[in-house]
Amino acid sequence: MNRVLFLNPVGHDQWDQAVKDVLMEAKRDTTEVEVLSLLRGPHHLEYQYYEALVGPDMLHALKFAENGGFDAVVIGCFYDPFLHAAREIVDKMIVTAPCEAGVQIASTLGNRFSIIVGRKKHIPAMRRNVYEYGFKDKLASFRSLDLAVLELHTDEAATQERLKKEAFKAVEEDGAEVILLGCTVQLGFYKELQQELGVPVIDAVLAPFKHAEYLLDMKNRFGWSHSKKGGYEKPRVEEMINWGLEEQYFIQGLWTRIKWPI
Amino acid sequence: MNRVLFLNPVGHDQWDQAVKDVLMEAKRDTTEVEVLSLLRGPHHLEYQYYEALVGPDMLHALKFAENGGFDAVVIGCFYDPFLHAAREIVDKMIVTAPCEAGVQIASTLGNRFSIIVGRKKHIPAMRRNVYEYGFKDKLASFRSLDLAVLELHTDEAATQERLKKEAFKAVEEDGAEVILLGCTVQLGFYKELQQELGVPVIDAVLAPFKHAEYLLDMKNRFGWSHSKKGGYEKPRVEEMINWGLEEQYFIQGLWTRIKWPI
Amino acid sequence: MNRVLFLNPVGHDQWDQAVKDVLMEAKRDTTEVEVLSLLRGPHHLEYQYYEALVGPDMLHALKFAENGGFDAVVIGCFYDPFLHAAREIVDKMIVTAPCEAGVQIASTLGNRFSIIVGRKKHIPAMRRNVYEYGFKDKLASFRSLDLAVLELHTDEAATQERLKKEAFKAVEEDGAEVILLGCTVQLGFYKELQQELGVPVIDAVLAPFKHAEYLLDMKNRFGWSHSKKGGYEKPRVEEMINWGLEEQYFIQGLWTRIKWPI
Amino acid sequence: MNRVLFLNPVGHDQWDQAVKDVLMEAKRDTTEVEVLSLLRGPHHLEYQYYEALVGPDMLHALKFAENGGFDAVVIGCFYDPFLHAAREIVDKMIVTAPCEAGVQIASTLGNRFSIIVGRKKHIPAMRRNVYEYGFKDKLASFRSLDLAVLELHTDEAATQERLKKEAFKAVEEDGAEVILLGCTVQLGFYKELQQELGVPVIDAVLAPFKHAEYLLDMKNRFGWSHSKKGGYEKPRVEEMINWGLEEQYFIQGLWTRIKWPI
Amino acid sequence: MNRVLFLNPVGHDQWDQAVKDVLMEAKRDTTEVEVLSLLRGPHHLEYQYYEALVGPDMLHALKFAENGGFDAVVIGCFYDPFLHAAREIVDKMIVTAPCEAGVQIASTLGNRFSIIVGRKKHIPAMRRNVYEYGFKDKLASFRSLDLAVLELHTDEAATQERLKKEAFKAVEEDGAEVILLGCTVQLGFYKELQQELGVPVIDAVLAPFKHAEYLLDMKNRFGWSHSKKGGYEKPRVEEMINWGLEEQYFIQGLWTRIKWPI
Amino acid sequence: MNRVLFLNPVGHDQWDQAVKDVLMEAKRDTTEVEVLSLLRGPHHLEYQYYEALVGPDMLHALKFAENGGFDAVVIGCFYDPFLHAAREIVDKMIVTAPCEAGVQIASTLGNRFSIIVGRKKHIPAMRRNVYEYGFKDKLASFRSLDLAVLELHTDEAATQERLKKEAFKAVEEDGAEVILLGCTVQLGFYKELQQELGVPVIDAVLAPFKHAEYLLDMKNRFGWSHSKKGGYEKPRVEEMINWGLEEQYFIQGLWTRIKWPI
Repeated sequence: MNRVLFLNPVGHDQWDQAVKDVLMEAKRDTTEVEVLSLLRGPHHLEYQYYEALVGPDMLHALKFAENGGFDAVVIGCFYDPFLHAAREIVDKMIVTAPCEAGVQIASTLGNRFSIIVGRKKHIPAMRRNVYEYGFKDKLASFRSLDLAVLELHTDEAATQERLKKEAFKAVEEDGAEVILLGCTVQLGFYKELQQELGVPVIDAVLAPFKHAEYLLDMKNRFGWSHSKKGGYEKPRVEEMINWGLEEQYFIQGLWTRIKWPI
Repeated sequence: MNRVLFLNPVGHDQWDQAVKDVLMEAKRDTTEVEVLSLLRGPHHLEYQYYEALVGPDMLHALKFAENGGFDAVVIGCFYDPFLHAAREIVDKMIVTAPCEAGVQIASTLGNRFSIIVGRKKHIPAMRRNVYEYGFKDKLASFRSLDLAVLELHTDEAATQERLKKEAFKAVEEDGAEVILLGCTVQLGFYKELQQELGVPVIDAVLAPFKHAEYLLDMKNRFGWSHSKKGGYEKPRVEEMINWGLEEQYFIQGLWTRIKWPI
Repeated sequence: MNRVLFLNPVGHDQWDQAVKDVLMEAKRDTTEVEVLSLLRGPHHLEYQYYEALVGPDMLHALKFAENGGFDAVVIGCFYDPFLHAAREIVDKMIVTAPCEAGVQIASTLGNRFSIIVGRKKHIPAMRRNVYEYGFKDKLASFRSLDLAVLELHTDEAATQERLKKEAFKAVEEDGAEVILLGCTVQLGFYKELQQELGVPVIDAVLAPFKHAEYLLDMKNRFGWSHSKKGGYEKPRVEEMINWGLEEQYFIQGLWTRIKWPI
Repeated sequence: MNRVLFLNPVGHDQWDQAVKDVLMEAKRDTTEVEVLSLLRGPHHLEYQYYEALVGPDMLHALKFAENGGFDAVVIGCFYDPFLHAAREIVDKMIVTAPCEAGVQIASTLGNRFSIIVGRKKHIPAMRRNVYEYGFKDKLASFRSLDLAVLELHTDEAATQERLKKEAFKAVEEDGAEVILLGCTVQLGFYKELQQELGVPVIDAVLAPFKHAEYLLDMKNRFGWSHSKKGGYEKPRVEEMINWGLEEQYFIQGLWTRIKWPI
Repeated sequence: MNRVLFLNPVGHDQWDQAVKDVLMEAKRDTTEVEVLSLLRGPHHLEYQYYEALVGPDMLHALKFAENGGFDAVVIGCFYDPFLHAAREIVDKMIVTAPCEAGVQIASTLGNRFSIIVGRKKHIPAMRRNVYEYGFKDKLASFRSLDLAVLELHTDEAATQERLKKEAFKAVEEDGAEVILLGCTVQLGFYKELQQELGVPVIDAVLAPFKHAEYLLDMKNRFGWSHSKKGGYEKPRVEEMINWGLEEQYFIQGLWTRIKWPI
Repeated sequence: MNRVLFLNPVGHDQWDQAVKDVLMEAKRDTTEVEVLSLLRGPHHLEYQYYEALVGPDMLHALKFAENGGFDAVVIGCFYDPFLHAAREIVDKMIVTAPCEAGVQIASTLGNRFSIIVGRKKHIPAMRRNVYEYGFKDKLASFRSLDLAVLELHTDEAATQERLKKEAFKAVEEDGAEVILLGCTVQLGFYKELQQELGVPVIDAVLAPFKHAEYLLDMKNRFGWSHSKKGGYEKPRVEEMINWGLEEQYFIQGLWTRIKWPI
């Protein structure tokens, strides 16, 4: 069995069950799914400050998950927060995230894609990621719904309508051949949209989850996992203990391999 | 069951069994594997002329495979020959190829990767692909073994030695964190090399095969497959019939859906 | 005398005479022009599958042309199909193509150019070429006529009207200073359009033909021709003979230098 | 008076006095300098995990500084940690950081620059920043001392020697016209190195500090400060209060403008 | 005292006093300001020919300024004419210019910026600079006022209105977070525009002037000035004398250090 | 007849005859060649200041040439000085230059090229041009002879030897398939070098001259010449007269179409 944790890096569990339902249906037979969120923190990550806030808790939950036997963690936010840091601290666990997984899938399915975001505010940070991942020339456009993350499910029919309108423009005017939903909280909308548009619509929960299963499969069979030479070299436990990091950040045992849950 | 065809786009079947053995071990339970090569053509694709030569036969075999019920085809050459054309002619089948799959995996496992090629001759065509896929800034280097494709298995110990030497330099001097084997005929070498180097070494047969299974899984569950709007719009059967393409290219029934005898 | 072959890589000769008429008027005194198309194949290359289909025949015609004493071949399609492969198989012959020649001329005549294509379908493949040639930052826009290749001459006044409309927008809205006609079958339209717009309008038949004459002039005088070291290294005749390629592809004598026509 | 805080985002104050001494000498008369570090955390930020760990405390210290009347904060690490988040949470304060300030200065003083880092481990994260800031084509090379941050002052003569050796190669072999010291802890070395090399050597403490004074001067006179429209839009205090972020992160009063005790 | 010369590279002094008034208010106490224009030449630099025309006189004025004791020169045109040549001929003087200074400031204050130009004619030359400086991905758009340089102050209310209209579109439609005024003659407009828009509006006179003071401050304290190794290596006086350049260009004594004014 | 002027933008005529000899042999029958240099100015353009110095005289000579009936001018320096300004001031004349012509030819003849420069000093300015023209990804390397322009013919055997050594490394180590001689004064060396290397070696005098003939041919037949809309819009004669530019720059009659005495 492969144990995969979908980690919602926010301080409430409002979406956990919905995500879990979706993943239970989407998973392979050999995958065990867990969905968790954080014990404290903002309810969405629209701001980079909120991202920063959840960083330590998210990374610690992720490392506790590795200690506790998880094989992969999906970071549940389209900003891919702390993806590089996460790959640095793991020993063998796979770490994936929505934007990286999504742009790779999208560029395989079509020549150009558009990303539908909640608000224009989200674009600069996402663009940095898309460019950094190498997909600048495949990005047809960002399109904004002008809806905050927490408003996406207030009136789902209205959201679906806006999605359709913007995605349609992305295809017709911007030359997108694939649509990426640029927020995990856009969960639930891809299927209908896909049918209406006639092009693939990539969901931000499903894509990184399947990416995790894929990478896990290869890790198990071929030993391919995140390189620990170079940028993902792991911090030295000894110095962390010497500095008292476990006490300072209330993560007793994390680096000395106490297992989770405790 | 998902039926996956690994198509060696060369005019001999010398490597088919070796590839099949490897894939039978690597496949999921729900995957059926077939490995085929072409009935005529060059024995390797080091030259772009050879690529061009095998194009029609390869695409026809691929389309016959779709007619015959295959769910995915892996194009078995690191030049990813005719990948875009292949995605254009399919209706629903998934098409993958080694370089595209490999650079996506490599960039997820590390910050930079190097590609080990047989001969320097291969570099310009591969570089075009790597850049076109968006991975220019992740490419640490190309390194050449100075061995033709057909010499790779002449003296396997010598090849392994050269691989080790070049891959080691790629890691130490060029800053590669992951190694990509830049030829499907480098089959059989990744495991030992990976152990020696301590970084992931991506095999050019296994990577696109697993990529195919991954994409298939998502297609089956979420309906995500190659977009048929835009660059992958399918040619119109009517005009092909009118022009007599089936007779001209000895592919009677291909476009009128005669199935491929298997 | 320099013998230049304009090779229409399609399976009909409908445009050969029109192209020849134009070239006879455009050629230098020291140039002999021949225009040929293929004996089989699709009637246009809008699809990448059609490109792949004509590949071997086109390359063989081109190589037979070299054997038969031609000094240069112009590949008559704005996708520049198999340009790299063609330069690989020649010994000394010059090979040119419309997009490469066109973007070089355009970038010399103005700061940015737009390409007028028949249908949006053509854009992804052409954009790959324009970017690969280095002209991404000089490309003001693609503009589509929404006319299939075979419809371009159905109602020439209507086509001229659409060309004018899109080219005008390219200049006024997109900042183009030069217009490239993105299809050899747009033959006949550049002159009037140029007069109306007041900016250079580059024809896709004339540009690569003149480019061929230019390169030939330099080859004859200075010995500059396609480098045979690196990416354009020629395949080895010995292995082609050993594999039976001449028999398999019905090109008896091609690589053993039987002259064309036979 | 302009009050500038140099914030060492590490959990010890070992370098604070040395930094303060240097800044007291470097400051304008109208600048008041404070140097502070964090109350907990790792002693260096070589790992991206350590960066993540200090994020919330660093941002909170920075925001407390704004509440307490500081006009600018310099983030004291060449990774420029949380620079975008910091600019998001401020109302009017200026935020600068070493890498951004350094590459701007370097590109003004010469055509290409090299960055001397402690260890190769640092390169991938720094390269992301340098590329994101737009200076990919100005970057001649990274050169590594193969010294951990905490070893830089163990044997200063040896460090100076290594710096000289690598910087000399950067100039002679890589074409650097300016040298950037890629770590704030390389403090103290630039002057001698500059004399030996005959090219500007930019110090990672001084550069962002002067950048802060520069931006402050313009803010005071012209009202230019970080744009609060778009990517640096500030989080809404109301939702932070509703979620209980102040209690959860032990920052009571931070967002309701309790001042920082000074 | 630091002596800074703002050099209007045009053949009339119509704007000198207005620039001086602005700079006298903007300068530090320790700065002495001089504003000069050329004795001959075009009245604006909209054309690259005009740029070329003023080149020698501008560079000679700049070098005379260094001889005469100036510490910095600001080149007063947003094309940054001869910036590289200027940095080559100085010994120790700082040279700055509006576009380089402006894009660096803008990219520090926001994620993307737009440049408001007088006429579309200006865009190609400015784009070359913006791209060369590395800010292609930070450039949201160019927007044109469709006003020649000499018309900008004909009807200031009308100009202000157009500026507002275009800058507003830049923010709302193009995603600009900062506005750059792309001409020194747009002097006087930034303040009101900034208030109306709510984003920083960077003035093309003030930005490079403050950049000069900033660089001077660092030069005085840390010895950082334009690198004289590599691209900014200074011409050899001996050969200039041998060729008679001083006589030929009526710059007697310039290279043999006669001071200015004479 | 097409009259082509090769304009050596230096203040001595030492190379004029050698250039003319070469061009007389290289020209078409229908071309008339003139080679001229300036009446004053530096003897080489290694410095950007020297470039600036010759700018007005060179542009005026070029415009006088147009007035006097020349059909094309070749700017005889590999920095391509004032190429954009030159294209702006012409009415109908063709203007070419060595670097632009050379990189276009080189990229057509091979996949990557190297440029052999005299001194490292030349690289930054040339790299700006190569990148601006779009050939960054085709540039294998710059290689320096460490010889000043005026030393290139001091010991021609030694120069030939150094050229051979650096060009050989460019091919073997850097992957160059074509060599560009990066200075017009490297005249005379290409032929032997080409024979020794077995790859095309592009001469900086011949390449732009043939480019001029090529563009002229197309201009005469198809009306294609430098676009006068956008960046190459011509300055208005009226304002030049009003400002007194003809008197100020001793070019009486230039803009009022007095012909150049020939």
